[in-house]
Amino acid sequence: MARNKHPEETVGRILDVAMRLFVEKGFEHTTIQDIVDNLNVTKGAVYHYFKSKEDILDAAIERESAPLMKELVAIRDDPRMTGLEKMQALFEASMDGPQLPLSAEVAVEPDPVKNSRFLGMQYRSIIEEVAPRFVEPIIRQGMEDGTIRTEHPREMAEVVLILANLWVSPMFRMTDADQLRRRMDYYVELLHLMGLNVKPGRITGMLEDFRSGYEQKLQERGGRA
Amino acid sequence: MARNKHPEETVGRILDVAMRLFVEKGFEHTTIQDIVDNLNVTKGAVYHYFKSKEDILDAAIERESAPLMKELVAIRDDPRMTGLEKMQALFEASMDGPQLPLSAEVAVEPDPVKNSRFLGMQYRSIIEEVAPRFVEPIIRQGMEDGTIRTEHPREMAEVVLILANLWVSPMFRMTDADQLRRRMDYYVELLHLMGLNVKPGRITGMLEDFRSGYEQKLQERGGRA
Repeated sequence: MARNKHPEETVGRILDVAMRLFVEKGFEHTTIQDIVDNLNVTKGAVYHYFKSKEDILDAAIERESAPLMKELVAIRDDPRMTGLEKMQALFEASMDGPQLPLSAEVAVEPDPVKNSRFLGMQYRSIIEEVAPRFVEPIIRQGMEDGTIRTEHPREMAEVVLILANLWVSPMFRMTDADQLRRRMDYYVELLHLMGLNVKPGRITGMLEDFRSGYEQKLQERGGRA
Repeated sequence: MARNKHPEETVGRILDVAMRLFVEKGFEHTTIQDIVDNLNVTKGAVYHYFKSKEDILDAAIERESAPLMKELVAIRDDPRMTGLEKMQALFEASMDGPQLPLSAEVAVEPDPVKNSRFLGMQYRSIIEEVAPRFVEPIIRQGMEDGTIRTEHPREMAEVVLILANLWVSPMFRMTDADQLRRRMDYYVELLHLMGLNVKPGRITGMLEDFRSGYEQKLQERGGRA
């Protein structure tokens, strides 16, 4: 085999193919061989970059979430915003982002057991990283500047994230745009009850994007539905 | 092999051993052979009753949750209670029950990725069974009898259950009794904000049971921690 002069490109292609297969077949039912069969590389090349299928999933999720993580740091460290304004900015950031096309793709045939490894990794990322490193510090700032009232900053951070990423999200269950809209509406209502008065400005646009992506995928998969 | 005259007893023993191993080693790292090694039966006998490891987990979880399910039916169909009273009864029923010793056991070394299959099964059971069959009908009764106000009965049912079973629960993360208390307190606060004014009467007793079970397990596992 010729020496690979573009390792980043190879890694990128492995992750692209792996992510598509995990989404289509489910993580459990995808083998390294399936990934190899969809790439112009050898099994040895895949193992050169990744120890295991789990390792590939970790890397793929890290790559997907990198832009949002960068944005979270910028919001958290912005010296001009109050705590509540940062929660608003965070809510808006989570409406955009590259996860949307993927959501529409996944939502056509998702299942919480088939996708349980994604579910567990999301859960762990929330409680070990996103809640303590990003959302809790923002809530604590809000408690100090008087824009957020709570005695449970850690718990509030976790609830905000668990509901958004595990419950509202269409990644782990069959969902059409109307069901997603109802969960979104109730989520915004709950945030208001918690004293986090986010403006749901971008939700309608996000839902329209989801609806068109979802309907397109349904048509493409028409034969299988 | 002599013909088995007590199949229920055998099935019960398989489930006992399997559940203990799933909890101790994690579902992914437990094999059918591990289960056989801890029982006085052959591998063939295990396969006589169960198709697969997944099948054993399904049966074990079904057995664990059967008493609570029976109680949920009794609460839902009780003609004397209002919707809100039923939500209160449901909250209290979830404080008791056989899941507690198991919680203390699991909480000593749990992990959302290692236990992701449990997590996915809980998630599916909530959205496919417990929310639509039990909690949503109770909330709808409350909307009719004027004791619960919401325009999102399905979503309220799911949020109540997702937070209780996936977030408050110590099954999917390292938790000591103080952290569990903080999540419980914030959960009760959220229920109040949602208009579900449950009385947190039994929480203290439940937490004490958890604390003593947890500390005992920690001591037993002292060498491994």
